[in-house]
Amino acid sequence: MAQESIELVEVGPRDGLQNEPDIIGTSDKLALIERMIDYGARRLEIASFVHPKRVPQMADAEDVIAGLPDRKDVTYIGLTLNKRGVMRGLATREGGKRGIDQAGCVLVASDTFGQKNQGQTIAEGIAENRDMIRFAKAEGLRVQVTISAAFGCPFEGEVKPETILAIAEEMAAESPEEIALADTIGVGVPAQVEDLFGRLSELLDGRIPMRCHFHDTRGTGIANAWSAYKAGVRSFDASLGGLGGCPFAPKATGNIATEDLIYMMERSGVATGINLDAAIAANRGFAHTLGRELPSRVARAA
Amino acid sequence: MAQESIELVEVGPRDGLQNEPDIIGTSDKLALIERMIDYGARRLEIASFVHPKRVPQMADAEDVIAGLPDRKDVTYIGLTLNKRGVMRGLATREGGKRGIDQAGCVLVASDTFGQKNQGQTIAEGIAENRDMIRFAKAEGLRVQVTISAAFGCPFEGEVKPETILAIAEEMAAESPEEIALADTIGVGVPAQVEDLFGRLSELLDGRIPMRCHFHDTRGTGIANAWSAYKAGVRSFDASLGGLGGCPFAPKATGNIATEDLIYMMERSGVATGINLDAAIAANRGFAHTLGRELPSRVARAA
Repeated sequence: MAQESIELVEVGPRDGLQNEPDIIGTSDKLALIERMIDYGARRLEIASFVHPKRVPQMADAEDVIAGLPDRKDVTYIGLTLNKRGVMRGLATREGGKRGIDQAGCVLVASDTFGQKNQGQTIAEGIAENRDMIRFAKAEGLRVQVTISAAFGCPFEGEVKPETILAIAEEMAAESPEEIALADTIGVGVPAQVEDLFGRLSELLDGRIPMRCHFHDTRGTGIANAWSAYKAGVRSFDASLGGLGGCPFAPKATGNIATEDLIYMMERSGVATGINLDAAIAANRGFAHTLGRELPSRVARAA
Repeated sequence: MAQESIELVEVGPRDGLQNEPDIIGTSDKLALIERMIDYGARRLEIASFVHPKRVPQMADAEDVIAGLPDRKDVTYIGLTLNKRGVMRGLATREGGKRGIDQAGCVLVASDTFGQKNQGQTIAEGIAENRDMIRFAKAEGLRVQVTISAAFGCPFEGEVKPETILAIAEEMAAESPEEIALADTIGVGVPAQVEDLFGRLSELLDGRIPMRCHFHDTRGTGIANAWSAYKAGVRSFDASLGGLGGCPFAPKATGNIATEDLIYMMERSGVATGINLDAAIAANRGFAHTLGRELPSRVARAA
């Protein structure tokens, strides 16, 4: 029997950095991305096409993309929160340039949070994302979609599983490459992950792969990742060192740390393609750039 | 169907404090224990009978025990690393005094670590602990046993499951009230927990309850606790705020935090009997006593 394996989606350059109060220079971002590719990351979320007034840290998205290593074995994701974002993503590919490889669409599973974060209700998010997926595909751009706040909302509290499944069904109708559930504010627990990904798995029935995105705000991020693995998820968002957070969600802390995810998976016999020692070295290097220690527990224990 | 429930074993007063470089006064320890009982802890590891030169923080074990609230609904555990420890535990009950309710025996699943920590090989630990359990029971003292370094050794690396099961079988022959597996240095991962507790469950076949003890050194502690729950464990060691560590294990950090365990369990529909808000308030109070923030992520996010 072949060894089980998972795919890391390194979201440090986008979700990891967007919350940083000081602007990181484009060359520092590109150096970080190169280190990530060096330690084995083959799919990376490298920028977000949002208005620079909303997220100043992402103002250089096009410059970062223009400087990316042209590696055929690496997939670069640009986050697109609306059709204007997809158009900016497509523009990076004009004139024979490589640009982004995949658009990452996002809609929020809460009316209140969705209006604060993206200025749209759930229904508006569904309509916009269906249109975005159709448009990206028609333009020859690969596209996947993430349902955020899927495990709870900072403003409304509980989010009903039925709401998530209804949104997922609408998205599935457009056949994106992948559907992800994100615990944007880090409130989820393993029993919830088993339930929600179990139901999503039934709904998608193997037609569309699943991805998960956890934050470690309440210490459950790594437990949730394992439960998602057991429920059949094979793609995992994580950020080097546990960088990250969401500027519009109160008290949201970092993503699960790449090092912690990789340690757990590799020691459980699941291949990740990541060189853990190299990731820890990259953590040390970027901690020096930022001037502070990053939260990854594995890196701290090393 | 009755709701599922677990038992918290609050180990903050012992495992949580023994690593603190500054000696905490007996009255501060007793105040902490009272707060723990207030937030719902009904079983607490309150001291260790070790030589004060080895662990100076535990030098006032007898004084702490003499000052414990005389609550009939609370079980106080004294840690006993050898027969001399059991005798000190029995001495706390002399002259009609309540003293400790239960001896917690410990043996190490590694020859090297066992010699450094307790001056005994695995074989010597088995013989000593069989004798200790027999002796405690003959003297009318309740007794349980923990197999430490069960998920890995800081000096020898991997610990074979067969080694753990052979030790557990020897311990089971003395019918202790409970057999625990401890990840003393926080290297364990969920797949290992499922395997080891699954095998232990088969071996014990319901005759003797299981307990687990995890450290969060590499971010897997809460994931391990959930896997242990799924494998049938219903008693969980944790320490308020994630205090703790082992002075003889390099880079061992704190126990899993009571607040993080309770958050995960309660939100998963598992009753714990703990008032989480009161635990977070107790964390704040004791952080003030120590003069530093404690690692619990749930308390930090609150």
